[in-house]
Amino acid sequence: MANPVASKILAFDVFGTVVDWHGSIAREVDAMGLGVAGSAFALAWRAGYQPAMQKVRSGELGWTRIDELHRMILDELLVRFGISGLDEAGRQHLNRVWHRLEPWPDSVEGIRRLKARYIVCTLSNGNIGLLTDMAKRAGLPWDCILSAEVFRAYKPDPAAYLGVASTFDVRPDEVMLVAAHHDDLAAARGCGLLTAYIERPLEFGAVHPKDVSPRPENTMHCSSIAALAEALGC
Amino acid sequence: MANPVASKILAFDVFGTVVDWHGSIAREVDAMGLGVAGSAFALAWRAGYQPAMQKVRSGELGWTRIDELHRMILDELLVRFGISGLDEAGRQHLNRVWHRLEPWPDSVEGIRRLKARYIVCTLSNGNIGLLTDMAKRAGLPWDCILSAEVFRAYKPDPAAYLGVASTFDVRPDEVMLVAAHHDDLAAARGCGLLTAYIERPLEFGAVHPKDVSPRPENTMHCSSIAALAEALGC
Repeated sequence: MANPVASKILAFDVFGTVVDWHGSIAREVDAMGLGVAGSAFALAWRAGYQPAMQKVRSGELGWTRIDELHRMILDELLVRFGISGLDEAGRQHLNRVWHRLEPWPDSVEGIRRLKARYIVCTLSNGNIGLLTDMAKRAGLPWDCILSAEVFRAYKPDPAAYLGVASTFDVRPDEVMLVAAHHDDLAAARGCGLLTAYIERPLEFGAVHPKDVSPRPENTMHCSSIAALAEALGC
Repeated sequence: MANPVASKILAFDVFGTVVDWHGSIAREVDAMGLGVAGSAFALAWRAGYQPAMQKVRSGELGWTRIDELHRMILDELLVRFGISGLDEAGRQHLNRVWHRLEPWPDSVEGIRRLKARYIVCTLSNGNIGLLTDMAKRAGLPWDCILSAEVFRAYKPDPAAYLGVASTFDVRPDEVMLVAAHHDDLAAARGCGLLTAYIERPLEFGAVHPKDVSPRPENTMHCSSIAALAEALGC
């Protein structure tokens, strides 16, 4: 097994791995009193995410930021959920809930500890502005915000993973992707990156627990980002 | 005059504005005992910078990161200055002196104060890896590292300045460029950005003092980044 301590760069998936999109959106939608269940709305919004990015990957859409894709999905959901009382300013504000996602309780402290030994950066399909707003609000202490937007390629496009290594002028196996999703990690591994799986059993909410069983192909498997810091001696 | 307090984003030029390239390089070259004057070497290296970027802007070179442009210039300088005792590892190390530039004494504290009210980001022709290494080493608390590399356009290409506004989904006049160079500020102003001139009279060393007279076309004129923070009430 490659020695993870020897890697130089830790690149973090963000939605689900660092922040709790389901809980954050469900709480905000519930608080708006729109007459819909926040959890169902959050799950439906997130379910539109991969199909929307696929339109960009396939070329059906030109390069489009996640903010705009989120808005396209939101406009469909408002119709589907029968929500009519939201004006343009309200829609814009709700769409930016993705800029206001709350970190999991261990994220800020875990990343802070890892930062002492590694370059810690994002590698998210979220756009740069979204990730910057989120980091500033939540206190996520990134050394650098990298995004699909920098590489004009959405994960799992190899250009995104290899872009991190190129950005820092290191070999792919000097980068470790940290993520709560096996498909993201598999694509990174295919590009030669090391991989750390983070258990986020409540990513889809308490009533939809996620299987977080270890898979031997990952370099590391940790219960949280803080546990990753502990395992790496940070 | 546009109200600078109403701007949301402060985008900083880096080389010369935030960090002292001349002093940092001169000291490191002097300490290497290569038999050349560090100051002259630093000035010659920097003098090669605009012509090298011009080759990219003109299309003579495809997209090339500053790290690589710095190395091309360095290899020429080693010949010109008659330095033969530097092996490949030594050249690579020296080339990365640009990652190790020291901030001016007020930079870290000034940016930290401004960060409380504004999004503070870089807008440098330096590449992302260089700027990240520099920030981590010097403790520059950027919210986000933006670079010509993100926009594939070297300043003064309008795509770089307008790219900042687009990244954060704001109007150009909600961004203020902070720089010690009137030509950079003029190009930003041409794109509709606000501008803050920072006096760095010693940018080229104590024996080559720079004219730092105010020009009325800039939105603000400050003696340092700390003075900018003071003027903006941060």
